Amino acid sequence: MADASPPKWHLAHTTWFFETFLLKPFVPGYQAFHPQFEHLFNSYYNGVGTPFPRPERGFLSRPTVAEVIAYREYVEAQLLTLLQAPDLAAVQQSNGAVRNQSDQEVLARVTLGIHHEQQHQELLLTDLKYNFGHNPLYPVYAAGVLPEATTSYSAAHYVEHAGGVVDAGIDPSSGDFCFDNERPQHQVLVQPFALADRPVCNGEYLEFILDDGYQRADLWLSEGWAARGERNWRAPLYWREINGEWFEYRLDGLHPLRPDLPVVHVSAHEAWAYAAWTGQRLPTEFEWEVMARQQPVCGRFVEAGLFHPGPASRAPTNELCQLYGDVWQWTASSYSPYPGYKPLPGTLGEYNGKFMSSQLVLRGASCATPQTHARPSYRNFFYPPDRWQFTGIRLARDV
Amino acid sequence: MADASPPKWHLAHTTWFFETFLLKPFVPGYQAFHPQFEHLFNSYYNGVGTPFPRPERGFLSRPTVAEVIAYREYVEAQLLTLLQAPDLAAVQQSNGAVRNQSDQEVLARVTLGIHHEQQHQELLLTDLKYNFGHNPLYPVYAAGVLPEATTSYSAAHYVEHAGGVVDAGIDPSSGDFCFDNERPQHQVLVQPFALADRPVCNGEYLEFILDDGYQRADLWLSEGWAARGERNWRAPLYWREINGEWFEYRLDGLHPLRPDLPVVHVSAHEAWAYAAWTGQRLPTEFEWEVMARQQPVCGRFVEAGLFHPGPASRAPTNELCQLYGDVWQWTASSYSPYPGYKPLPGTLGEYNGKFMSSQLVLRGASCATPQTHARPSYRNFFYPPDRWQFTGIRLARDV
Amino acid sequence: MADASPPKWHLAHTTWFFETFLLKPFVPGYQAFHPQFEHLFNSYYNGVGTPFPRPERGFLSRPTVAEVIAYREYVEAQLLTLLQAPDLAAVQQSNGAVRNQSDQEVLARVTLGIHHEQQHQELLLTDLKYNFGHNPLYPVYAAGVLPEATTSYSAAHYVEHAGGVVDAGIDPSSGDFCFDNERPQHQVLVQPFALADRPVCNGEYLEFILDDGYQRADLWLSEGWAARGERNWRAPLYWREINGEWFEYRLDGLHPLRPDLPVVHVSAHEAWAYAAWTGQRLPTEFEWEVMARQQPVCGRFVEAGLFHPGPASRAPTNELCQLYGDVWQWTASSYSPYPGYKPLPGTLGEYNGKFMSSQLVLRGASCATPQTHARPSYRNFFYPPDRWQFTGIRLARDV
Amino acid sequence: MADASPPKWHLAHTTWFFETFLLKPFVPGYQAFHPQFEHLFNSYYNGVGTPFPRPERGFLSRPTVAEVIAYREYVEAQLLTLLQAPDLAAVQQSNGAVRNQSDQEVLARVTLGIHHEQQHQELLLTDLKYNFGHNPLYPVYAAGVLPEATTSYSAAHYVEHAGGVVDAGIDPSSGDFCFDNERPQHQVLVQPFALADRPVCNGEYLEFILDDGYQRADLWLSEGWAARGERNWRAPLYWREINGEWFEYRLDGLHPLRPDLPVVHVSAHEAWAYAAWTGQRLPTEFEWEVMARQQPVCGRFVEAGLFHPGPASRAPTNELCQLYGDVWQWTASSYSPYPGYKPLPGTLGEYNGKFMSSQLVLRGASCATPQTHARPSYRNFFYPPDRWQFTGIRLARDV
Repeated sequence: MADASPPKWHLAHTTWFFETFLLKPFVPGYQAFHPQFEHLFNSYYNGVGTPFPRPERGFLSRPTVAEVIAYREYVEAQLLTLLQAPDLAAVQQSNGAVRNQSDQEVLARVTLGIHHEQQHQELLLTDLKYNFGHNPLYPVYAAGVLPEATTSYSAAHYVEHAGGVVDAGIDPSSGDFCFDNERPQHQVLVQPFALADRPVCNGEYLEFILDDGYQRADLWLSEGWAARGERNWRAPLYWREINGEWFEYRLDGLHPLRPDLPVVHVSAHEAWAYAAWTGQRLPTEFEWEVMARQQPVCGRFVEAGLFHPGPASRAPTNELCQLYGDVWQWTASSYSPYPGYKPLPGTLGEYNGKFMSSQLVLRGASCATPQTHARPSYRNFFYPPDRWQFTGIRLARDV
Repeated sequence: MADASPPKWHLAHTTWFFETFLLKPFVPGYQAFHPQFEHLFNSYYNGVGTPFPRPERGFLSRPTVAEVIAYREYVEAQLLTLLQAPDLAAVQQSNGAVRNQSDQEVLARVTLGIHHEQQHQELLLTDLKYNFGHNPLYPVYAAGVLPEATTSYSAAHYVEHAGGVVDAGIDPSSGDFCFDNERPQHQVLVQPFALADRPVCNGEYLEFILDDGYQRADLWLSEGWAARGERNWRAPLYWREINGEWFEYRLDGLHPLRPDLPVVHVSAHEAWAYAAWTGQRLPTEFEWEVMARQQPVCGRFVEAGLFHPGPASRAPTNELCQLYGDVWQWTASSYSPYPGYKPLPGTLGEYNGKFMSSQLVLRGASCATPQTHARPSYRNFFYPPDRWQFTGIRLARDV
Repeated sequence: MADASPPKWHLAHTTWFFETFLLKPFVPGYQAFHPQFEHLFNSYYNGVGTPFPRPERGFLSRPTVAEVIAYREYVEAQLLTLLQAPDLAAVQQSNGAVRNQSDQEVLARVTLGIHHEQQHQELLLTDLKYNFGHNPLYPVYAAGVLPEATTSYSAAHYVEHAGGVVDAGIDPSSGDFCFDNERPQHQVLVQPFALADRPVCNGEYLEFILDDGYQRADLWLSEGWAARGERNWRAPLYWREINGEWFEYRLDGLHPLRPDLPVVHVSAHEAWAYAAWTGQRLPTEFEWEVMARQQPVCGRFVEAGLFHPGPASRAPTNELCQLYGDVWQWTASSYSPYPGYKPLPGTLGEYNGKFMSSQLVLRGASCATPQTHARPSYRNFFYPPDRWQFTGIRLARDV
Repeated sequence: MADASPPKWHLAHTTWFFETFLLKPFVPGYQAFHPQFEHLFNSYYNGVGTPFPRPERGFLSRPTVAEVIAYREYVEAQLLTLLQAPDLAAVQQSNGAVRNQSDQEVLARVTLGIHHEQQHQELLLTDLKYNFGHNPLYPVYAAGVLPEATTSYSAAHYVEHAGGVVDAGIDPSSGDFCFDNERPQHQVLVQPFALADRPVCNGEYLEFILDDGYQRADLWLSEGWAARGERNWRAPLYWREINGEWFEYRLDGLHPLRPDLPVVHVSAHEAWAYAAWTGQRLPTEFEWEVMARQQPVCGRFVEAGLFHPGPASRAPTNELCQLYGDVWQWTASSYSPYPGYKPLPGTLGEYNGKFMSSQLVLRGASCATPQTHARPSYRNFFYPPDRWQFTGIRLARDV
């Protein structure tokens, strides 16, 4: 699949990011590790020449993994040297004010580079899962231990919000890192609504399938119905029906489908059709955000080592379970610039802004997201038919 | 092009609409004109069987035009008989209350059918223009007389709005017809902004081209840049460069490009890139609507017989010129359901709702739109790369 | 389908042929009918500029049929004037020797143009049939009267040939017109073989279908098996299974399948698979030719007005039935140059020679071929998956 | 590229061949190494279930190389046990008569399996070259030492043959192994002709390029001209023009183009166009074969370790140089069954016969072919646009 890259490429590309945006501009006389790597490991930055074609990344049998590791070590060493320069070291030790603009930019880019690498940590897992999950051998990546299966699940509860004019976007007083697409904070008007206290689970989704959910055009968006036909969708990406029984491929292998686990690896089109079948709908990104601000950022992240969403626990009344971790939650909101949005200056402005068409916002975080990567204003985005991320469904309704 | 249908098909399909949604359900014992027409002239209603494939409409050498005309006459006669039934006739003559639900539904569907036919009147012209405009002979469809060319144009002015919580969607007290996607009226929060008092003109757009606008990736959305490459965009759809001079194909033939006319037949991607080049942006659909509510619905519509947008006149201070007629204006708003949106019941619910993904809203009306089809809450929608409609650009900016 | 052109285009292109290769070079000061027609109606001659793209011929709503007729009349009048020049007229009246090389070339090209037009007469019918046959209305083109249906058919006989060194290609002493691909006459060595005395009929082919012929990979060439899958072949092109009964679309409408008629509109891949199923094979073009030389050129041609192959009559012992007319017969011979082959000089050399790859030779003639177009050395050629010509099967075997 | 498989796949597939066609049918109670390998490593045998899709072979990150090696060792051990059964061992030691049909079949299949593996040895190199040659790093596979560059080359001589009825196909009295497509030996009639005494070299081919050979439609077959356009051919597959100088990627890296080396990695279409440019033609497979029978089988094969064709030495008068080894030579002959051809029985019949459409025969052998794989009757075959094999050009002419 054109969207999935091999692990080696992710390792090299995240290194490339530091080399391109830190070492080359800020280390005088910097010697590139290899003259061709600027081209080979450029993902999509037109400001840095022509990127190597994405669908061909998988064909790069060279450089070898060992060469990529050497590349990482080389860049890391240079980066440490840069950061240990007296001025910068002082800033870091004392948490003191940054003395000049260049130092400020270096630190901002290091931070950005780390968050960039966190994103690729997640992609590395989802891309690898795509490869393994389409191999008839169903290889095991890691044998995490999911909480024990419960044979049943109870109905989701809905937590209400009165609506009104609310804040959206990063709180500038928090001092937290954020991507440019979370800025500026601004106000939006939200109608009264309610959110389900947990994501939709496999058992519920199976009922949709058994009720011919994939055969009823009236439940689907027109594009979704077409995608369903062209891609032959009959169930979530990693579900397999074998001799009349349902199985799910997880990074710990192929297992009988557990009804209590969150449904995962569904497209926004499937999420929409499922919601229509229940008579409800997907939340907007602002509905999600206003609720999430009221709760702490916690959940099952990549550090848990499960690499698969776990079952819901019973949430206290008026609290939402699994806002973060487990599965990203599709929203009905198109990925658009906030009023007054300004991309980062220069080539780094290509990071987010140029993708603001035809995509939908996802909120939360998944079982493959690093914990420090999650926050209430975070906007993830994918195309409606995309299924290879850990994407799930949280329902909303008008009240 | 898969999106464009021949005139004959439009004539038959609009007739099919009345036959399918009025005659078949409301005329007892109705005899269909031809058993296969239900299939042949179904555009996209899955609730009425499998539609005949859209890209193959152009291959239907049969039925002939004469047979389609006969079909129209047959259905029209039956429709008049239905409407002359005593109950319905009474309603119409007295503007009195409708006596029963069935009569109410009949009248609602006739009205819908008429607005549907208005939409196809516009499509018939844009589809025909696509066909003629790609014929090396550049046939003349109709020799309308555009207002005389002015050699220059003055800079657009910007009209400001203070922002705040404003209404969006059809005013239910107006009693006007509207499509389901304009409902329900609701409130949105708008930031302060300003709108240009006229659409971008060819002369301005030519400067963008001459400044390498089509070669600068930094101005474009990622999808737009890709579309530009794949489709080899170098100028608006009907511009032709011949021996170093620019011409524009219009429905009155191929003519030297007039700098004073509004630029038309640009995709949303080109509109976005142009706006980025000027340092401004496209308006949201709500910014457009709140301004439009303050002005009367007037402009150059299809009744003017020009079939091409005319030049701007100087607007009075604080008024917007060419809000309606001339060109549809791309907005930055994705085509999404309004809060609380409900599609029409049954198969007619497929009219609008299922297209609410990946498209953008356009506002206003064009030189091919019937006058009674325009209103401030009207939401037209097309995919960002679409260029064959009369689509233009009105700029916005933050204030 | 990219291969099929509308009737209007055939009318214009055959006229273009005379204009391009006769009037322009041989009439001093010739005024072209329309400057764009050279481009619009060029089929594939790179030597005459860039041909108008073949798949877009169907979109040319202009020129109208009336304009094309006017084009034909204009060119025909000019052509007659040219041919009535004293020198040329003398040649024709007296059948005397041509006086100079230019006159000789004019006459050769007129003859070529007539044979070219004969080929397009056939294509016009097969293209029109493709259009009508894919229209759910199954329009009737002409109500020819096929010989009455016989309920049964008797087994084909095989006529043997002893093999040896035989002639292939046009006999230069015959004085007949031929295309360049039939030259030069040469000798080939043929092994002993036998040919069926009639083409395969629908009844026989139906047995192949009922015996799962379309589901057995072992009967098919690898490319044929792939084409079968991609194009979803389950029967010949115009067979339709409706409620368990087989019908065949013919130019006189949709009719129940007649078992006694020759199977027609099969690809070479289907012909190959059918032959494999019978344990026999397709003939080589030389096997066909050596047998055909022993019989007169007769059969059901386009002049019969049936536009469909008729049933076989019982052939006298050791004679072959339906060699010409009814259906073209696929051979196993790839379309290759004869030893010493030279294409016509100049742009006319593009007529045949550049197509000598990946195609197969068909021999005989069909129910859509003009009678004077048939001869034993004639080499028709199409790609193995092509089905829209009147193509059938005559079996061969080793002896 | 869909045609190229990774080395690991070749290693597994050739093992699969022995497992499938020898161990499974002839070793009672044989335990397959892995139940899924039958599917994963089936190339194209429909008789052994559904082959794993060819374009996805490159995505099989599992089994690992180590697992494939274990597979090979397992199968090899079982195979040796089978061959050491008393009956079979006796046959091999004494070269005596085979006692029964089953033993005969086992030995025939072992021999076939070895020749099959030889073919994949060559493919492994050409596939690997394709991968390396499209990597911007131009990795070195092996640093063979080509004979030193000569700065010039002398014109090719032509060796004549008087034509007549000649033998074609394997000589049954030779006792040599052959594929089924080389049988039966039969006679063909060949016209007088002459063959060039060496393949076309880079210097000659460069003249063709410089004379606009890739821009002149009149030199090309229609399909070739289209392929040239779609695939953007401007030179042989591994030629690279860098700052106005020509380089060639070889398995020993990227080097300045050597004019004296044979041109290699050209399609049949380029070979045809080149021949047309010289006023000559490609030989038929029978012309090549009748000449080759008069000379010993010798040349630069894979055992030489060069993995690239070397320069021609001066051939003695009336002898042909480089018939075998160096480059495969495109012929003008389509790959068709010989008269009386019978494929092997059962699934092994899919080995060759089903590919007899749309391909051309190549004769000789290349620098990647094992020496014992070459013989005068050998028929290699590829599609006319294929370029990734070591394919070159030997010219022929009529005399």
